[in-house]
Order: sequence, then C-alpha cells, then structure tokens
Amino acid sequence: MIPTSPFHGLSAFPLTPAGAEGRVDVDALGVLIERLVSAGVDSIGLLGSTGTYAYLDRQERSRAVAAAVEIVRGRVPLIVGVGALRTSWARSLAQDAERLGGDALLLAPMSYTPLTGEEVAAHFEAVAGATGLPLCIYNNPGTTHFTFSENLLARLSHHPRIAGVKMPLPADEDFAGEIARLRNATPDDFAVGYSGDWGAVPALLAGADAWYSVVAGLLPGPALRLTRAAQAGRTDEAEAIDGAFQRLWTLFRAHGSLRVMYVIAGLLGLPAGEPPQPIQPLPDAVTAEVEAALADLDAVSGDRPKV
Amino acid sequence: MIPTSPFHGLSAFPLTPAGAEGRVDVDALGVLIERLVSAGVDSIGLLGSTGTYAYLDRQERSRAVAAAVEIVRGRVPLIVGVGALRTSWARSLAQDAERLGGDALLLAPMSYTPLTGEEVAAHFEAVAGATGLPLCIYNNPGTTHFTFSENLLARLSHHPRIAGVKMPLPADEDFAGEIARLRNATPDDFAVGYSGDWGAVPALLAGADAWYSVVAGLLPGPALRLTRAAQAGRTDEAEAIDGAFQRLWTLFRAHGSLRVMYVIAGLLGLPAGEPPQPIQPLPDAVTAEVEAALADLDAVSGDRPKV
Repeated sequence: MIPTSPFHGLSAFPLTPAGAEGRVDVDALGVLIERLVSAGVDSIGLLGSTGTYAYLDRQERSRAVAAAVEIVRGRVPLIVGVGALRTSWARSLAQDAERLGGDALLLAPMSYTPLTGEEVAAHFEAVAGATGLPLCIYNNPGTTHFTFSENLLARLSHHPRIAGVKMPLPADEDFAGEIARLRNATPDDFAVGYSGDWGAVPALLAGADAWYSVVAGLLPGPALRLTRAAQAGRTDEAEAIDGAFQRLWTLFRAHGSLRVMYVIAGLLGLPAGEPPQPIQPLPDAVTAEVEAALADLDAVSGDRPKV
Repeated sequence: MIPTSPFHGLSAFPLTPAGAEGRVDVDALGVLIERLVSAGVDSIGLLGSTGTYAYLDRQERSRAVAAAVEIVRGRVPLIVGVGALRTSWARSLAQDAERLGGDALLLAPMSYTPLTGEEVAAHFEAVAGATGLPLCIYNNPGTTHFTFSENLLARLSHHPRIAGVKMPLPADEDFAGEIARLRNATPDDFAVGYSGDWGAVPALLAGADAWYSVVAGLLPGPALRLTRAAQAGRTDEAEAIDGAFQRLWTLFRAHGSLRVMYVIAGLLGLPAGEPPQPIQPLPDAVTAEVEAALADLDAVSGDRPKV
C-alpha cells in the first residue's frame, strides 16, 4: 500500500524534556528525535500525551515544533499534537504547527466541562479548517474523557483535512471487527491506527494502518522490529517480540506509560528531565523493575548496550 | 457561628463574560458581580467552573480578578479559582490572585494524565504554600476526573492554609453521614460545603457550612432565600423554594448547568456573552423551557420582573 497520509506505520512519541516551570529543553528534545529518525521510524508524534503537550504553553510548544522541524529536516513526517481546551487555542496551535513546518496534526478533544458529540464535531471542523495540514483524530478517552461514537468518526472522516484516527484498544479486543466497521464507514484513504502499546501486535495483524507507540519514543529498535513483523504477517516473530515486551507492558499499565518512560530515559542515559508536576517521578523501587523489563528486550533491541 | 474562613454560607459563582478568543469583558463581569454583592450573597466564587476558568489564560484571569476586586471593594469575600493542569501554573495563578487582592483560593485538581492521590496531595501542598490566602479544595470529579478519598481530604485539611472543601453531592445522598465523617477527620474550623444545586437543601439542613451555587451567580435572590431558610432549619420553607427550582434543576442535569446559565443570562438581559467554544450555546428550543422554569421562581424571586 502506498500511504496517502502520514498516518501509516510506526509513529514514535518522544517525551518533551522540560524544566520545572515548563521551559522546553530543545537540545535534549533534538537528541531524542534524532535517535528516532536514525532508527527509521515512519513518523514522529511530537507533543502527544507522551510529549506532555497538555502541560506546555503555546510558546513552549512552538519552541518544541521549531526544534523538531530543524532536526527532522523532512526525513520523516512530523505529526504535531495541537489539543487544547478552547477551540480558539487549538486553532492557533494548529496554525503555529503549519507555519513552523510541521507535516500533520493530531487533535485530542481535551475537556473540562464534559462535551457533547456536536460540540466535539464543531471543534474538530474548526481546527481542521484552520490549516492545510492533514489531521488525525486522537481518540483517547482515558485522558480526554470523551468517547467518539463510530458515527461521529464516520462524519468527521469526510472532512477534507481529517485523514485518520488514533484509536484506543477496543474493550472487546475485536480489532478485526472494529477496523472492518470503520473502513466501511470512512473514505478509502482514511487511516485507522491504534495506541495502547500492548495491543500493537493484534492491531497490526488485523490490518491497522498505524501503531501510535509510546515505547517507540525511547526504544524504536524493538518497536520497529515488532511493527515490520506484524505488518508482514509474520505472526510468530511479532508475538515473540511482543513477549519480550510483556514485563514492560505490565509496568505501563500499573504506573501509566508516561511515568515509566521517564524511568526508561534515565536508565538509557537520555536527557528527558522529570515529568511535569503534578505528575511525579516513580519511586526508586520501580527503577529496578524497569531495568529488569528492559533486560528482557536485549535479544530484540539494538537500542541499549548489553550489560 | 462566627465564620473563621470565607467558606461559609451562600457562595455565588458568576459566569465570566468573554469574547470568542477568550478576552474577558470586565465591564460585563462587573455588572454580574455587583448584582450578587447587592443581593447579599456571603461570598463570590470567581473563576469557578461556572466562571469558565479552564478556558481563560493567565492574563485574562488576572484581568477578571482585578476587575472583581475593584467592584467588590471588600464587601464580601472574593474566592478565586486557580486550577491549572501544571503545578507551576496553579502556583502562579494563586500568587496573582493574592497580589491582585483576592481573599481566598479555590483549587480543583485538573487532570489530563490521570493523577494519583500522592500527586494531588503534593500539588495542593505546593499551591497552598504559595500564598497566605486560605484555600478551599474543589472536589469536582465530573470535570477533574479525580476523586478525593476521605483520607486524602483529612490529610490536606491539616495544612495551615487549607481551610475547607467544596464537595460533590454524595452518591448515597447521606449528607449527614458524610458530614459527620468529615468533621470527625478534620480540624474544628475546617469548612465543609457542597455544590450541585439540587442538593443544596438537604446539604444545608444536614449542617453543611456552605452552598457553592451555580444558580446564585444569576439568581441570588431565591438562592439566598433558600439558603437562609435551610440554615435556620425552616425545612418547609426551604423545601418549598427548592420545589420552585425543580424545573430548573432538571434542565441543569439535562444540559449541564453551565450551558443553561448562558440561557438564563440572555433571558434576564444580562451581558454574559456566549460559552467558550467548544462549548456551544443551547438550541433555541431550550430557551422556552428555561423561560418556563424561571416563571416557577417568580413567587420566590426578586431578581426578575414579573411578565
């Protein structure tokens, strides 16, 4: 398949290194992104939930985008998260991303007052219409507290700029059924991808267009091997690599993947800083568990020197 | 009882009139606040959820606080909502509120990445320690998606600046039981109040210290009459006034109280503007229902000319 949008393959979501007051360390961000591009990921998901976009103001998000564009230099598509509570803010962030050289947008329906489907539809249409960039719907009820109906996704998929969706893992684990329903209700070139790293193998084996991956933001090597095996239908290989990730997935589910990513960065000696407060670093006791989980990946990883 | 903090009696939460880009109309805000002070409410809850604080940036929130301080002129306590996703932001907002002349703080644990109890505790301690103002815990799971345990409330209540809590309505409707447990676990001068307008009468009859009221932001007259009757234990009178509110409470629950408040403002000819997008104005069909609900209040209201 020839991708018609940037929303295909392995999209790696880097952390955004920043200080306690929310000032982005653009040099450190550049180090993280260069590793991902060099590893060969299919896109960079800048300022996703893993990139702590919700905790960075407009100026800092612009600094992050500008730094990322400079590092990526067009080698892979740069997808920029532009979610914000207010429609006018999200529009401005989308326009910033386009002006600074981003390739695509990722928009989550952040909420405070719970939103109706009509309100989310109008929000997405307003932001999608603000730039010429393709936009991916960021369907992430765990953080936004809004759940897209399949009808709403189908409606939005017909907007000329809305080119894909990043789905959460289906509660019934029926990836094939959900993908079939979404394909049936959306244009042929609308891309259906998944997040929730522990569901990547079944999602890709069921024909998902993309894996929006937290772990690939720091461990692109094994994430790429998993992706390529699953995309090619090499089930045994994909499941073997997934097996090596199991201890890490357990920690992601127990502590939240974001908190664990900061521990991984520390163990890899990468400059990620600390999570934005109120989110706190995990206690030291967890570090040993993450270290053990990473050791499981040695056989499938080129990211980390053997001990 | 002599209140030892501003967190007693009827706290009225005004809308914050603002333009489409989030610029606060300070003159219109002044009109809304002067009505509340003149009516005799016990405090103003500026920049609460009803004041759309989550949709206003730091500069606009400062403009709102400065305008409110100027209008209120110390006649009633001005409680300022300072919630923000990032701890450093909430601290800065609290310091702004103190510097500009606010009397007290209201802090909700806004979240994007779901927060742990320890993270919320550290967040509250950091913000409470940033000023000399008393702080009220804004326990509002419907918007923040964080639920305080009674243990966490008890722990925070011993912080020297944390002087009260604004509780949601108890799921089991056992106000007396919940208030007794909270009184038992918190210092004597810690104030326990409730939001959720349709629970005001049972909350106050059960001995709650405060009613944090959405409707009082536009209809302070009947809200005050309800409050005074319930505070004095005049059950029949309080329940009769509550009865006159029933159609409005039904609309609050159906559409969200915030959306209905903009309709009420329109019907009263008050300058509230429109809700911050993505929140949308309610369809015209609802206006007639709100008009009918307001008519029910004519007998207990001095806020609105008879038709």
